[in-house]
Amino acid sequence: MTATSRPGRPVLLGQNQYGKAENRVVKITRDGGTHHIKDLNVSVALSGDMDDVHYSGSNASVLPTDTTKNTVYAFAKEYGIESAEQFGIHLARHFVTSQEPIHRARIRIEEYAWERIDASDANSKFIGADEVRHSFVRKGQETRLTQITYDGESWEVVSGLKDLVVMNSTNSEFWGYVKDRYTTLQEAYDRILATEVSGRWRFNWTDDEQKAPNWEKSYEQVRKHMLQAFAETYSLSLQQTLYQMGARIINSRAEIDEVRFSLPNKHHFLVDLEPFGLKNDNEVYFAADRPYGLIEATILRDGAEARIPVDLTNL
Amino acid sequence: MTATSRPGRPVLLGQNQYGKAENRVVKITRDGGTHHIKDLNVSVALSGDMDDVHYSGSNASVLPTDTTKNTVYAFAKEYGIESAEQFGIHLARHFVTSQEPIHRARIRIEEYAWERIDASDANSKFIGADEVRHSFVRKGQETRLTQITYDGESWEVVSGLKDLVVMNSTNSEFWGYVKDRYTTLQEAYDRILATEVSGRWRFNWTDDEQKAPNWEKSYEQVRKHMLQAFAETYSLSLQQTLYQMGARIINSRAEIDEVRFSLPNKHHFLVDLEPFGLKNDNEVYFAADRPYGLIEATILRDGAEARIPVDLTNL
Amino acid sequence: MTATSRPGRPVLLGQNQYGKAENRVVKITRDGGTHHIKDLNVSVALSGDMDDVHYSGSNASVLPTDTTKNTVYAFAKEYGIESAEQFGIHLARHFVTSQEPIHRARIRIEEYAWERIDASDANSKFIGADEVRHSFVRKGQETRLTQITYDGESWEVVSGLKDLVVMNSTNSEFWGYVKDRYTTLQEAYDRILATEVSGRWRFNWTDDEQKAPNWEKSYEQVRKHMLQAFAETYSLSLQQTLYQMGARIINSRAEIDEVRFSLPNKHHFLVDLEPFGLKNDNEVYFAADRPYGLIEATILRDGAEARIPVDLTNL
Amino acid sequence: MTATSRPGRPVLLGQNQYGKAENRVVKITRDGGTHHIKDLNVSVALSGDMDDVHYSGSNASVLPTDTTKNTVYAFAKEYGIESAEQFGIHLARHFVTSQEPIHRARIRIEEYAWERIDASDANSKFIGADEVRHSFVRKGQETRLTQITYDGESWEVVSGLKDLVVMNSTNSEFWGYVKDRYTTLQEAYDRILATEVSGRWRFNWTDDEQKAPNWEKSYEQVRKHMLQAFAETYSLSLQQTLYQMGARIINSRAEIDEVRFSLPNKHHFLVDLEPFGLKNDNEVYFAADRPYGLIEATILRDGAEARIPVDLTNL
Repeated sequence: MTATSRPGRPVLLGQNQYGKAENRVVKITRDGGTHHIKDLNVSVALSGDMDDVHYSGSNASVLPTDTTKNTVYAFAKEYGIESAEQFGIHLARHFVTSQEPIHRARIRIEEYAWERIDASDANSKFIGADEVRHSFVRKGQETRLTQITYDGESWEVVSGLKDLVVMNSTNSEFWGYVKDRYTTLQEAYDRILATEVSGRWRFNWTDDEQKAPNWEKSYEQVRKHMLQAFAETYSLSLQQTLYQMGARIINSRAEIDEVRFSLPNKHHFLVDLEPFGLKNDNEVYFAADRPYGLIEATILRDGAEARIPVDLTNL
Repeated sequence: MTATSRPGRPVLLGQNQYGKAENRVVKITRDGGTHHIKDLNVSVALSGDMDDVHYSGSNASVLPTDTTKNTVYAFAKEYGIESAEQFGIHLARHFVTSQEPIHRARIRIEEYAWERIDASDANSKFIGADEVRHSFVRKGQETRLTQITYDGESWEVVSGLKDLVVMNSTNSEFWGYVKDRYTTLQEAYDRILATEVSGRWRFNWTDDEQKAPNWEKSYEQVRKHMLQAFAETYSLSLQQTLYQMGARIINSRAEIDEVRFSLPNKHHFLVDLEPFGLKNDNEVYFAADRPYGLIEATILRDGAEARIPVDLTNL
Repeated sequence: MTATSRPGRPVLLGQNQYGKAENRVVKITRDGGTHHIKDLNVSVALSGDMDDVHYSGSNASVLPTDTTKNTVYAFAKEYGIESAEQFGIHLARHFVTSQEPIHRARIRIEEYAWERIDASDANSKFIGADEVRHSFVRKGQETRLTQITYDGESWEVVSGLKDLVVMNSTNSEFWGYVKDRYTTLQEAYDRILATEVSGRWRFNWTDDEQKAPNWEKSYEQVRKHMLQAFAETYSLSLQQTLYQMGARIINSRAEIDEVRFSLPNKHHFLVDLEPFGLKNDNEVYFAADRPYGLIEATILRDGAEARIPVDLTNL
Repeated sequence: MTATSRPGRPVLLGQNQYGKAENRVVKITRDGGTHHIKDLNVSVALSGDMDDVHYSGSNASVLPTDTTKNTVYAFAKEYGIESAEQFGIHLARHFVTSQEPIHRARIRIEEYAWERIDASDANSKFIGADEVRHSFVRKGQETRLTQITYDGESWEVVSGLKDLVVMNSTNSEFWGYVKDRYTTLQEAYDRILATEVSGRWRFNWTDDEQKAPNWEKSYEQVRKHMLQAFAETYSLSLQQTLYQMGARIINSRAEIDEVRFSLPNKHHFLVDLEPFGLKNDNEVYFAADRPYGLIEATILRDGAEARIPVDLTNL
């Protein structure tokens, strides 16, 4: 990062960006009586020749954040929302190519999933149920994420998810660790392993000349492989499980070169029932809130460059 | 409610209760390699002869809240967790029957649902996947709720849910309403209807002599009927939809006499795209946060008494 | 509560209410260069002849929730916001007296407090600071609450607060309690007592003929007395402290007849430092999240009727 | 960032760190009857030779996260908590110097402020109030933050705050901006400017040989200068205000070389009261939730290197 210098000015401007955050756009597509939903939360961040607005307050180079909001809604109509990634690409390209002072656009999107409400049974006394194709219930599991960055030349697409809570009720151990003066932890040979997955993965698609991935299928497959690796790894540490989850993605999905996970170890402590004359044979656990172990790492395809930052925010 | 009077004391004690809130208990049941989870958040509230502790600080009649916590964990072992309702019944009975000063126990439980992680495909290059029966992903939709109250003689069971977000993308209108000096709303003939359902339903099981409902099946069926009524009602107001949801439950489930809903009208406003030369044919919506309409009502089986309070809290 | 019966209709409507919740209104009053803020979150709930809208969807008696929102903003201009209570009284009276079908209005208000940003020091090299009387920083402590209910004849005003976190680092004990099979708690003779106060207090002003309390002063005084009672009570149980807090209010403020508190016991556990060869002389504590004791009670002036419900919600 | 390569391994490990997050430690210091509180939330992240645990699950180099938790509590006793920064320095130094495989420690701390509960008035009928020096109420405004990073050679200390909500009710304009096809915003010549400050500032103290800043005084002074710059800037854009806030800090505090702010523009929209025959002379505003403008920038002392990352997380 280079700060922008001004003659006689001892305080300089460094990296800066602006835009409208958390534009909540819902797009309904009607295929006869069958409706489809896309439900997004879109945040725009623009960078470029923005010295004047910081130093003097001149807005001569500033496209208002309100306009970036309007653009989100207009583009939902003009381009539709095929996928969060594709929608972000349309937006990022627009800001960089249409506005001289804007050199870089970063679009972050949260996507909320919905599924159809099942129709009444055929023999229901309530009629019309099988006709209903416009009723939805929100799937509450993970929130899907994507971040599109464009500088006028190349693309960076980092997709991911947050708030996906998973648990293995066995096949997890933790022992053989360093012990110092402050160590009191007992070794564990059969423990619960639970975490709330926050993950990001970077695509190797960077150029309009390349064929773009199938973003929807990619998400579904990455999620599946990640979950299966979590389920199938006999775990000696959450670090090992994390690595297996990332490696499974890299090995299974050619379009992805880098994965980063932030995995809180959601501790489930075996409750001591002996004072009550009861034996707790790995049955009854206390699910603790805080503190929690926090395990974070980047997993890379050999030869790939690490570009996902250490800290991950959503908006 | 009657306040407890004391000679010469001008300030009296009214309704009071105490206990440990939010005991997070996870129970794993192992059927060979196949594991089952129950994941609860249990809150205990006890009432009875508790004047002394308030007036003088004497704890001679006070079973510590810490003990009520221990009891939750011990009972998870001693009785298992067949259902949240059944578990609450065990706990409430215990406190009222084992402690002379305690006349009434109220157990509130939140239940978090989990589903199994799908095994790898048969032709997966990763082995062992079909053996994994101990890996779970949390279902994020609604949180299931129950409240068990026991006074030593009769039971009141109120179950419910919160955070179930639903949407109809059509078949909702709103017109023909009162207009006064402050009315600016335009009538709507095709709008999105979305809400985040918070519902409670009261069982007519009150007595150990009665056969208890199948709590698990009841929850599943109530949820299904409620969703179907939401989906299948052509709505002229959220009030009408609410009534249909409640009536469908009462008409479908003989074990339930009373339903109460608190339904925020999660407004989705059609975005005005005309300034951009675009037509918005019920396609692009802004999902607003606040303010929101809030529609609340009780629905009763004819002859039943209304007992669910106006305000509903969880813990 | 009486359900409304309809011929041939087996499912009846019970208590119901509707309105716009969480209207965020900020009022700036300019006294020359000196500005004043009122920052409220206003929720409206109306009840009355609302059977038709539930049974048939007819909105002929329904003043739209959007209109109730507009009224909030218009009244901020027409009447100003002298206090949250006074503002709620204007609104409640308006809805009940201007709309035939509306028999009862309940206005709930959250108020967020602000304080002025201190001007630069007189000898500051930055000029103009002492002229600034329009800059504010939000006071983050408690949120002030009020609930106004009007049925066309009499008023009920219940004010209160939430999220006020307090702690005594000594002068708290807990011993002499009941011990049963599940009791493991050690008696404590010097513990931290901390809670997050949620309180409500009901005024005995019910009638326009009575002189209304000074709402602003009353809030300030109730808060002060409540905090002082918390600080000055040598506590043998949180129940005792709760009673003292309520009694102090009743004894100090003639305008208040009933108080209800919901006090989570925010446990601070003394950390066992012995494994590290250290003595913990009531110095180092772990602040736990869950579970927590939850102590709730109503305190009444002798002769007053208890009217504040067991469960307290905000909106 | 360099990935760690292994012969024949196509998937590599990149940046990684681990530790216990959110250790809630409360320290009471007793000076006779006068008590003092430090209330922290401490998160530990350690990095170093951690390849084996990721690749094979071997914990031979892993100090358990549980031990890092114990160390936090033990150090609260051994060293006391003079300031969050000083406490973090003790911890970071310990992990890097005592554990061979650990090359870098990052300690993040949130600090919650408390103030004393005022004693009863001298003429109070309640006695003993002026003796109470152990009763506190939590100050709810901002949360103070610090991040200490140590690699065995040099220190990086970045302190800051979050959740500080500020408002100017006048002296803010926004006009003269770019207009494109999607621009509908009206220019504003007198608007409310409100934001929730999230800020971080980096100290130029990096070496044990240097005299360390007075961390407590520095925080207090930075906060004061930042607020005064917000209050005293006649704002033509939030970007300009942000720059002034950062520049004021750099110019006033020699110990700080870099500041980064993330400032959501908390929009307050003037409500259109004309439909009700009322004039809104900058009096009545709707405080919107989402979307919001988001303005982020780094401000640097001339010659300083920018090191605070674009995204800021707390834990």
